[in-house]
Amino acid sequence: MAQDKNNPIGVFDSGVGGLTVVKQLVKYLPCEDIVYFGDTARVPYGTKSTKTIERFSVENALFLLRFKVKCIVVACNTSSSIALKLLQDNFKAPIIGVIEPGAREAISSTKAGRIGIIGTSATILSKAYESELKRIAKSEFPQKYLSLKTVSKSCPLFVSLAEEGWLNDPVTKQVAKRYLSVFKQKKVDSLILGCTHYPLLKDVIGSVLGRGICLVDSARQCAIETKNVLYREELLNTKKQKGVLRFFVSDEPNKFASSGRKFLGSAIKCIRRHEDV
Amino acid sequence: MAQDKNNPIGVFDSGVGGLTVVKQLVKYLPCEDIVYFGDTARVPYGTKSTKTIERFSVENALFLLRFKVKCIVVACNTSSSIALKLLQDNFKAPIIGVIEPGAREAISSTKAGRIGIIGTSATILSKAYESELKRIAKSEFPQKYLSLKTVSKSCPLFVSLAEEGWLNDPVTKQVAKRYLSVFKQKKVDSLILGCTHYPLLKDVIGSVLGRGICLVDSARQCAIETKNVLYREELLNTKKQKGVLRFFVSDEPNKFASSGRKFLGSAIKCIRRHEDV
Repeated sequence: MAQDKNNPIGVFDSGVGGLTVVKQLVKYLPCEDIVYFGDTARVPYGTKSTKTIERFSVENALFLLRFKVKCIVVACNTSSSIALKLLQDNFKAPIIGVIEPGAREAISSTKAGRIGIIGTSATILSKAYESELKRIAKSEFPQKYLSLKTVSKSCPLFVSLAEEGWLNDPVTKQVAKRYLSVFKQKKVDSLILGCTHYPLLKDVIGSVLGRGICLVDSARQCAIETKNVLYREELLNTKKQKGVLRFFVSDEPNKFASSGRKFLGSAIKCIRRHEDV
Repeated sequence: MAQDKNNPIGVFDSGVGGLTVVKQLVKYLPCEDIVYFGDTARVPYGTKSTKTIERFSVENALFLLRFKVKCIVVACNTSSSIALKLLQDNFKAPIIGVIEPGAREAISSTKAGRIGIIGTSATILSKAYESELKRIAKSEFPQKYLSLKTVSKSCPLFVSLAEEGWLNDPVTKQVAKRYLSVFKQKKVDSLILGCTHYPLLKDVIGSVLGRGICLVDSARQCAIETKNVLYREELLNTKKQKGVLRFFVSDEPNKFASSGRKFLGSAIKCIRRHEDV
């Protein structure tokens, strides 16, 4: 079955963080309908194994395909790092992750050619960002390829600190100093915030690393990439009205609606529980 | 079908922490066979909703019942707080939680009658410990009932800090000071460690609260309670040989085996993945 341009875009994440990607999609593709799935009953993914993350990601994609989505955006860095190829190999719909867009932005922003990556344990272990950085540098930024250096570090406490709401807090600053000292030592000038929760800690991360380090958040680039893919596949919606947003979660919808507001930047309406996972 | 005394004891937890209960069961009931299930693919439970915790707990109990377990020990404080009654109402096998044993130990240890409770958000919100403390004080410690005061506080970062391995660490101490100051103010003399991860932080918690506060870990009392229940139901195993331990997890077994060792206090053998959840 060919994709229909009037069908919605599907987006999934392990929880609430992927709403930052929805926010950017709404900005760049305001007329598109979006179906979002947040797997809040099984969150987090970043501490789990490859096999489990693959299984969850396939189940999430299958759920979105019930809505005949014309493409799937994997807003979760962990799923994108681990399961993107599996999804692309198996499903007909275009699958867009956050790794490639984030890596491209980091390479275009670095001057010194030294790029840092922070993320969950699973994301860092996968080395997905390193592979993408090398591939993109080689083909699109050959003058930066030879001098490219990467440093990566998992920061497991950042998610809990962001969820606890300790965004500008001495404890968070102390944790950030410990996690991020390696990036100062190695003099990186571009740091990929490789988890959708980390942009909430941008102020603390920025204050620890000081000026002169570009903090890269993949959400915006991911929305631009989605627009490019839909254009290329002739799947851009031609409607002239504002798109409809629908949200599904595997745990309690009310909690998601209240905590999600700060990620989406506006109120979350039309939210339902999906219990099959 | 009547329970058979030769059948194993079933134990479940959201992850690895429930092994502290297994350790005590082995000590108090060395000849019993045990089947343990750790729901490592969906961990943690403490941030999730009542409905989801109930659903997971029922699924875990059903999995253990495949092994014809003669009783089920709910080693997870969150599941015990939320889902114990549901399990007891629905399943024939005796179901033993950690709340009642922990509450009993706290009441017997307090002199001032002021008891603190720390736990996950779900455990604290449920007020399960408060209800149990009142019920037990009223029926078993009437002289303490009238003066009984409880103070509770969720400590979401403690689990992440314990998992990060920052057990004796300035950051953990700073977090503990903030979380625990209320217990010093209210002059509690008995604190229930209402999450299986917290005993790993006993040193830091003890150093912040100072001497004179009894830290109550439910694991030992829960094992004693299990022994009592099996005795009462005439289900104690009469074999004279060491029991067999079998472990199942919903995520990667190797990671569980390595991180579980410090909770169990010995090597974990005979471990398999169970993927139906």
